Amino acid sequence: MTSPSPRSITGELAEYAASTRFASMPDAVRHEAVRAFTNWLGCALGGSREEAVTIAAATVADLGGAPQARLIGQQQRTDVASAAFVNCIASSVLAFDDAHLATVTHPSGPAGAALFAMSERHPVNGEDFLAAFALAIEIQCRMANVLLLPPARFNIGFYVTGLSGPIGVAAGLANLLRLDARRTGWAMGIGASQSSGFREPHGTMTAHFRPGHATRAGVWGALLAARGFTCSDHALEGEKGFVDVFSSGADLSRAVTGLGQDFELMRNCYKPYPCGIVIHPSIDACLDVATRLPAGVPVASVTLRVHPLTLNLTGERSPRDPLDAAISVFHCAAAALLRGRFGLAEMRQACIDDPAVAALRATIEAMPDPGLRRDEAILEVDLVDGTRLGSHTTVTRGSIERPMTDAELDAKFIEQAEIVLPSDRTARLLRLCRAVAELSDVGREIGAVLSTEMAPSR
Amino acid sequence: MTSPSPRSITGELAEYAASTRFASMPDAVRHEAVRAFTNWLGCALGGSREEAVTIAAATVADLGGAPQARLIGQQQRTDVASAAFVNCIASSVLAFDDAHLATVTHPSGPAGAALFAMSERHPVNGEDFLAAFALAIEIQCRMANVLLLPPARFNIGFYVTGLSGPIGVAAGLANLLRLDARRTGWAMGIGASQSSGFREPHGTMTAHFRPGHATRAGVWGALLAARGFTCSDHALEGEKGFVDVFSSGADLSRAVTGLGQDFELMRNCYKPYPCGIVIHPSIDACLDVATRLPAGVPVASVTLRVHPLTLNLTGERSPRDPLDAAISVFHCAAAALLRGRFGLAEMRQACIDDPAVAALRATIEAMPDPGLRRDEAILEVDLVDGTRLGSHTTVTRGSIERPMTDAELDAKFIEQAEIVLPSDRTARLLRLCRAVAELSDVGREIGAVLSTEMAPSR
Repeated sequence: MTSPSPRSITGELAEYAASTRFASMPDAVRHEAVRAFTNWLGCALGGSREEAVTIAAATVADLGGAPQARLIGQQQRTDVASAAFVNCIASSVLAFDDAHLATVTHPSGPAGAALFAMSERHPVNGEDFLAAFALAIEIQCRMANVLLLPPARFNIGFYVTGLSGPIGVAAGLANLLRLDARRTGWAMGIGASQSSGFREPHGTMTAHFRPGHATRAGVWGALLAARGFTCSDHALEGEKGFVDVFSSGADLSRAVTGLGQDFELMRNCYKPYPCGIVIHPSIDACLDVATRLPAGVPVASVTLRVHPLTLNLTGERSPRDPLDAAISVFHCAAAALLRGRFGLAEMRQACIDDPAVAALRATIEAMPDPGLRRDEAILEVDLVDGTRLGSHTTVTRGSIERPMTDAELDAKFIEQAEIVLPSDRTARLLRLCRAVAELSDVGREIGAVLSTEMAPSR
Repeated sequence: MTSPSPRSITGELAEYAASTRFASMPDAVRHEAVRAFTNWLGCALGGSREEAVTIAAATVADLGGAPQARLIGQQQRTDVASAAFVNCIASSVLAFDDAHLATVTHPSGPAGAALFAMSERHPVNGEDFLAAFALAIEIQCRMANVLLLPPARFNIGFYVTGLSGPIGVAAGLANLLRLDARRTGWAMGIGASQSSGFREPHGTMTAHFRPGHATRAGVWGALLAARGFTCSDHALEGEKGFVDVFSSGADLSRAVTGLGQDFELMRNCYKPYPCGIVIHPSIDACLDVATRLPAGVPVASVTLRVHPLTLNLTGERSPRDPLDAAISVFHCAAAALLRGRFGLAEMRQACIDDPAVAALRATIEAMPDPGLRRDEAILEVDLVDGTRLGSHTTVTRGSIERPMTDAELDAKFIEQAEIVLPSDRTARLLRLCRAVAELSDVGREIGAVLSTEMAPSR
């Protein structure tokens, strides 16, 4: 049943999605798409040996699935929907991926996983691939903006990537598959009909199932719509549609204003640290103080002041494993302060179980301060000798104002890829990612490097 | 992250789901489970040749999938998740299935599709099958009660079967697979993490995709949890959990009060007419008046008074095809009044396009009346000769007060099964359904009859 609507954003987004091409993308957006894809593929490799991925891969293997696309970092191949699902869990599981800070959406996981899997089935050159990938991110972030940003009232309990992810993925795939605008709208509507997820499972494997589900939902939307499976032409804005049920008072124009000119992709940040993005300002402050900590003087107390959302989303006091350590501002701050660095090693079980880290974790006080921005944190460390050290993060590393440099992203890629690939293959893969726009067949050329001999499992 | 919760309904439901057995089910519930399964299988056969099913089946075929379970009414086999998905679309697509009237949930589709598919992979006797099937329905309906019934405030734009379906299905499968209580809770939580769907796509193929998604989501929940994929132990009631995001002010005790004694399955109704359940009281009134309509005297005007929800959910004024005719109280009333019967023929394109039906459809006025119950309708028909005929439905056919008899359900089964099976096979299949409790291997024995030669496509 079609409903009258204030603005047919389904139709407007579908028209845009069906017609957008690499040629019309500004240079800065093209470059950012390459960075986002490189970051994504590195994360998918980095997470590929984690237990959540292993279980998901075994479940997929059990159901069969034609060998259309690879599980990244593994020898197994499966159907495109299942490959997207598993690869997105992999890119999410270390909480090292990316974040659209305005909405805390993690858009490149669902986008990258679906489009890369499809590129192995459906040959696509680098320019077309990047256009579809950037589009999938753009529409995810814009729909997240509609749901969350003023004047919308939104229940923060919903998992945003799970809501907007299927829509963006469906749009990106529809572009890649050259669906017409009407079927593109149906693809987005079928995707939106699977939009789901809430925050309660944070800290468990299901936290990473959710983006996996989002990308697969988008694949299903595109595949069904491509065959003429019908949906409402007003799935997003209709009276009982996506925006109506997941938000209230939303400004639908956020979905389409400046489309093609103003890119949310430029407001997407790559994580320098493998944990919840709202923890990052605290880590910066801890790393800063760590450089000034005198050797041998014990810490008496640690006080953090953070934006309230930090404690709301990442207030886990006593993490037991890497999954819930990634949502523990206490663990991350303690590890950063004590070790003076924050990388994958600080999220491993050994660090979580380290008695010195655990002792410091227990002494940290963290106070919500509504006067702070999300990317701000204030740290005070008192030592037993009476010394007080402090740090105030005003511009977080990896933020829009201080983005990860290309060199930093390269290093992050290499650190993760080398978990599963020998270093020469890692280097070749990184060169291919950096030059993805020039590839004639993304799935085949990148797949060829991925499929060669893997390093043994850790 | 675990959250303190007012009542751990995830845990209580999981304990119940893991331990429930056929032996503890009252006789009336056992009999009702047989009726619900029979009704479901008939609907799955009846809808199996519809276009939405054909497209879904082709999409599934394209992705491969090990031949673990059959597509009902077809020769194709695929993996259990995909088979459940397609078979649930089939049982939904004619809008002939069932309804838990208190919540307008359609529970037997997701339950039947998932459990029957799994029974082909995982041998199960009839008693164990029925216990799991009844459980899947029970938990779906109870979770729908939590979301919708007072004191809860719920956005009626959400598609209820899509929200509670994955949870019930996951619980039923967990029981069938003999998962322990903790993994049963995870299965339900992973299912709930895919809970989704809204009403805007009513009248399109996506309306039937939604229950298909719900059943597949439950299959995924159970399969992942069976392998140890973790979730929160408080996915349903946690602070940012399922109930929190989809409802507000909900009474969690509705999920568990009387569990094992008081069965929502007994409040589930089988549809006598293939259209939205809220239309049924109007059809009853039209069929009643039709018996008294004098031949040859044209109708001047028709006025219906119905519960407001009827127009809210099924107010489609100008249906173009069977999918939106099923949500058009105007079409259904016109067809029933003019033809004096209401079955599958009245929902076919020929009836929708019949000029006499279309003319009568256009003259019908329907008024929402908050003073009426959902299962009530008041009809007034004025003829051109001044005659006024009326009917007031107070007890709808197929309702809890006036349930479909076993004989009526048999006739409904036969009408639908014979769309794809020869009559002798239909009769054998019906006997097997009626005796499902005595079968030693449900999937094999019922599958054997389903797999034999099909009638040609219409």
